[in-house]
Amino acid sequence: MPATTVTIKQKKPVTLSVLSGTTLLDAVRTAGISLDSPCNGNGTCGKCRIRILEGETQTGKLDALKPEDAAKGLTLACQNIVTGPVTIEIPEKTRVTGKMRITDISEKEKKTLSLVRKERIREGMTPREIYHTQDLDLPHPDLGDNLSDDERFRRGFRKATGLEADISITTLRFLPDILRTSDFNVRAIYRDNGNGRAKILYVAGGDGPMPIYGLAVDIGTTSVAALIIDMTTSKVISKASTGNTQASYGADVINRIVYAEKPGGLIRLRKEIVENTISPLIRTLIRETGILPENIVSAAIAGNTTMTHLFLGVSPEHLRREPYIPAVTHVPELMGYQTKLPINPAADVWIAPSVASYVGGDITAGVFAVPIWKEEEFSMLIDLGTNGEIVFGNSDFLMTCACSAGPAFEGGEIDCGSRAVPGAIEAITISDDYEPSFRTIMDEAPVSICGSGIIDLICELKKTGIIDGRGKISRDLNSDRISFDEYGIGRYMIASPDLPGSLAEKDVYITEVDIDNFIKAKGAVYSAIATLLRSMDLPVEVVSAIYIAGGIGTNINIRNAIRLGMLPDIPEETYYYIGNSSVQGAYLALTLNEGKAKTEEIAHNMTYIELSADPAYMDDFLSACFIPHTDRSLFPSSDI
Amino acid sequence: MPATTVTIKQKKPVTLSVLSGTTLLDAVRTAGISLDSPCNGNGTCGKCRIRILEGETQTGKLDALKPEDAAKGLTLACQNIVTGPVTIEIPEKTRVTGKMRITDISEKEKKTLSLVRKERIREGMTPREIYHTQDLDLPHPDLGDNLSDDERFRRGFRKATGLEADISITTLRFLPDILRTSDFNVRAIYRDNGNGRAKILYVAGGDGPMPIYGLAVDIGTTSVAALIIDMTTSKVISKASTGNTQASYGADVINRIVYAEKPGGLIRLRKEIVENTISPLIRTLIRETGILPENIVSAAIAGNTTMTHLFLGVSPEHLRREPYIPAVTHVPELMGYQTKLPINPAADVWIAPSVASYVGGDITAGVFAVPIWKEEEFSMLIDLGTNGEIVFGNSDFLMTCACSAGPAFEGGEIDCGSRAVPGAIEAITISDDYEPSFRTIMDEAPVSICGSGIIDLICELKKTGIIDGRGKISRDLNSDRISFDEYGIGRYMIASPDLPGSLAEKDVYITEVDIDNFIKAKGAVYSAIATLLRSMDLPVEVVSAIYIAGGIGTNINIRNAIRLGMLPDIPEETYYYIGNSSVQGAYLALTLNEGKAKTEEIAHNMTYIELSADPAYMDDFLSACFIPHTDRSLFPSSDI
Repeated sequence: MPATTVTIKQKKPVTLSVLSGTTLLDAVRTAGISLDSPCNGNGTCGKCRIRILEGETQTGKLDALKPEDAAKGLTLACQNIVTGPVTIEIPEKTRVTGKMRITDISEKEKKTLSLVRKERIREGMTPREIYHTQDLDLPHPDLGDNLSDDERFRRGFRKATGLEADISITTLRFLPDILRTSDFNVRAIYRDNGNGRAKILYVAGGDGPMPIYGLAVDIGTTSVAALIIDMTTSKVISKASTGNTQASYGADVINRIVYAEKPGGLIRLRKEIVENTISPLIRTLIRETGILPENIVSAAIAGNTTMTHLFLGVSPEHLRREPYIPAVTHVPELMGYQTKLPINPAADVWIAPSVASYVGGDITAGVFAVPIWKEEEFSMLIDLGTNGEIVFGNSDFLMTCACSAGPAFEGGEIDCGSRAVPGAIEAITISDDYEPSFRTIMDEAPVSICGSGIIDLICELKKTGIIDGRGKISRDLNSDRISFDEYGIGRYMIASPDLPGSLAEKDVYITEVDIDNFIKAKGAVYSAIATLLRSMDLPVEVVSAIYIAGGIGTNINIRNAIRLGMLPDIPEETYYYIGNSSVQGAYLALTLNEGKAKTEEIAHNMTYIELSADPAYMDDFLSACFIPHTDRSLFPSSDI
Repeated sequence: MPATTVTIKQKKPVTLSVLSGTTLLDAVRTAGISLDSPCNGNGTCGKCRIRILEGETQTGKLDALKPEDAAKGLTLACQNIVTGPVTIEIPEKTRVTGKMRITDISEKEKKTLSLVRKERIREGMTPREIYHTQDLDLPHPDLGDNLSDDERFRRGFRKATGLEADISITTLRFLPDILRTSDFNVRAIYRDNGNGRAKILYVAGGDGPMPIYGLAVDIGTTSVAALIIDMTTSKVISKASTGNTQASYGADVINRIVYAEKPGGLIRLRKEIVENTISPLIRTLIRETGILPENIVSAAIAGNTTMTHLFLGVSPEHLRREPYIPAVTHVPELMGYQTKLPINPAADVWIAPSVASYVGGDITAGVFAVPIWKEEEFSMLIDLGTNGEIVFGNSDFLMTCACSAGPAFEGGEIDCGSRAVPGAIEAITISDDYEPSFRTIMDEAPVSICGSGIIDLICELKKTGIIDGRGKISRDLNSDRISFDEYGIGRYMIASPDLPGSLAEKDVYITEVDIDNFIKAKGAVYSAIATLLRSMDLPVEVVSAIYIAGGIGTNINIRNAIRLGMLPDIPEETYYYIGNSSVQGAYLALTLNEGKAKTEEIAHNMTYIELSADPAYMDDFLSACFIPHTDRSLFPSSDI
């Protein structure tokens, strides 16, 4: 196959040399440009829209390309095979850029973290105070005191701390210069190993403050969140989140695993999460705070099983094939350099343990962050991310299962869906004459609709009769907000610049396809909860607390989620929205001595139920794909 | 400075782009070609001979270029500065190629190593039997037994050995494929940590033997020696030695340190010792024996302080400047991958501790290999390498010092000198009519003269009156073997194709310059011994044993060394030639549990005397630069 070229017209145009037969999607990726492509080239999502300006390609099926996109001259990158020189243009909205969000952590969040930690300490756990700094003013060497640099450092350190210093070869390579440029006046960060020895983590010259930080990361399929923690006070300093740039290789874990199996795919996906997602996130966090990577001496990382494999560069291929075997669930403690993250090369890096292919470290860390594992009463954790994971139990046992909810709860696979970004609609009501009233995040002009908004919206659509129990839009209503496209797919318009008095600069709407995606997601979650309870032969009424975690957003209206048949119909006050329990667990593991071991113990004691091996699950799921449920008696309080 | 080109005419010619102003020596080095250059470009050794075929250069001082070389159209690469395009040719003998010597380790050597080890065990040390192999036939995963690969391995390993397995992330990356390609039938090499845990070093599929090897290395300034040891039986499997390819950057440690301080110099010298010297040595050893790098799970490496710094990539710059401070004397235990050697990436690598700038791990390992540190009687270790190091003491104290002998004892800086290679003259006598009789190594035609041969030769030259006490050749003798060049430098011809009945294919001779180099070397050693004894106020007669170690060769004639004034005049039977004590110490550290700690203890307890800080040393040295000594009463038994 002879080589040809693809030229991308942009501010700085690039011309790529590619083999004939390559898709435009793959060609563009070789330039390091990520296109929105949740179906990863299957031609089913219609998102990887580009425009061909010059040259011919061989075009495949364009069924997924929306008529309005086609009208703009767009085509799908994944469905065009390069056969000769071609010049293309990539619209801004097709490009995936993991947009960083630095959020000043709210006082409420800080308080929650601090409270949970204090409670654990009250119950007997101990603060992890093993990292310290030490100033050393060492005597200059002379012929009478000609100790080597490493021994001189050890002697001074011993004198100051009473501990024997273990110095890595990396530090030794820099030590002679640091000693001499700082006139033998140095500062060290060390870890007290508790056995009379100390691991030297960083040596710098001069005076001034020498902060010690920890890093807690939650690697989600769609979003990644990180906290920087002052390891001296255990306080959270800053927080940030960003999109997982792997998303351009598929929206869900299955598509990522498929991509990882392609030649070079695993390396590419590891690069995306390590170099293009978490590293910029860390750099942004420390740039804001003036921290050096060397000051980050401890990290705790929690992610689902696939994310953990990809982060480590371990092939996830067997996760998706029966009998669904992870390569690794208990990762050995790593050193910073092994992660390739911008942190201290000798940092202690702990990866939260996984339980099974679809119950990962995000869940074990999350369980540690809530009281399920230590109370006699039964409680439940429901993590609503791209996958839905459910844990049920008490101090005696923990059962868990996972269902593939898809990215709908995080706004994925919803035309106008998004994460909880400024301008996202987070709450909505619809009046009897089909007119919406909504609230957006930070009260900005509406740009999208996030997880909690979608729940409200679908609830209101059903309540007002705009949709039926299957999510189909009524053909009999008279409203400008309702329309049907040439394929007959219905759409409800929430905001639009074309509507009088609207602040919107773009259309924000929901389609029957979106609603269908959401119904499948809520059906998957509800039927998973039902299956888990059935496996223990217990009714939902035994559950004294349900903790809702995940990217669905702080403002989830639990009442509406129950009305929709997504969450069991038990009193609203049984539910607690706890946010990102995964990063909370990582925070606790960093700041409590017993945190890592307890999380490992939790992982060890969890019993995993493989839903695909449960013959009743599929029936349950199909019955739950209805609003609220085909068996209405399960939702007596639902009024829709 | 504009760029120009240097073309090297050879089988595959290369053209290098270099800056005007570069010496031809540096230009050639950028092509990865090493030229013989013991003075490292100072223009004093006359060895870096090349021929300029085309183009002009700016030529410096050529005093060191021998007339016969000049007659052949040769010039010195270090004294020619590139000013425009030039084409050169490099004679074969100017190129340095670290010629590998695989030596079937002799039964005698094996016996010595085994005896010393057995003696240590008899005295209470214990065999290091911590590396083992384990076959595992693991059950296949299914939905009822869906443990992850790492947990499955741990469970099987626990069942078989009773130990908890620690698996590195590197092994985890390969484990899924190894398990499945070997049908879950694997073999593992592990280290029993002694605390109920095991470090997994290697996992492979299938059946068949799974050997476990150790590597002992002595890094000398001039030569490098390595042993491969069966860690199950502690037996030496094979042995090899080679020239240190750093030699083309200077014959002695000072020149190497100077080169290491140049931009890129440290990296270059590390590359030379790691990639171009030790790695090929290991590859040759394991190619001969069918061992995989992964089977080498433990290594002990001993070298002088400069070699240790360069091997580790730690700058040796402060070693050569008062107050002579090493960057590191006690190196942390490393993992195989940190060394960049072709061994198991998780191998335990121990670097013998140094004492001071010029007393390194080769000496501390060497001391462990001889009984100095454990007997009540006084004894002495003299290591005759490029540097001479002396240790004196008993079980109560150990004193040490070092002198710069130069490479003469290993045949360096001697025109026809060489290491103990086949064809090297190792013993020689001269008759009253000035005719020599000699023995060569392996009885091959004479090609050079090695350390032990040089001692004999100079002794005989003095005895027959060919040279005087200062090493000057008599102008009054009538012999074809004696000649003087145009500068008046005398030469004694030992063998030559021009002499009747000679098997020699080349001239083998010694010059007054060679003799002078040797006298300085022996003077340095003798005066160092004298200084060390004086520091304790003890006469040489208290010494009950002197162990001679180093590259000087098995066949050193101790009697002659005493006659020359090189070694103290005490009974010949007090002396033991023990060969390479450094690699022996490394062997013992690998095969005895207490070996590493004992060597560290020895290093810790050694008191270093800096000769350059001893005002009497220089006088002692000058007095000793005479055959046998300016104070003849010190050598009553010397008859020459």
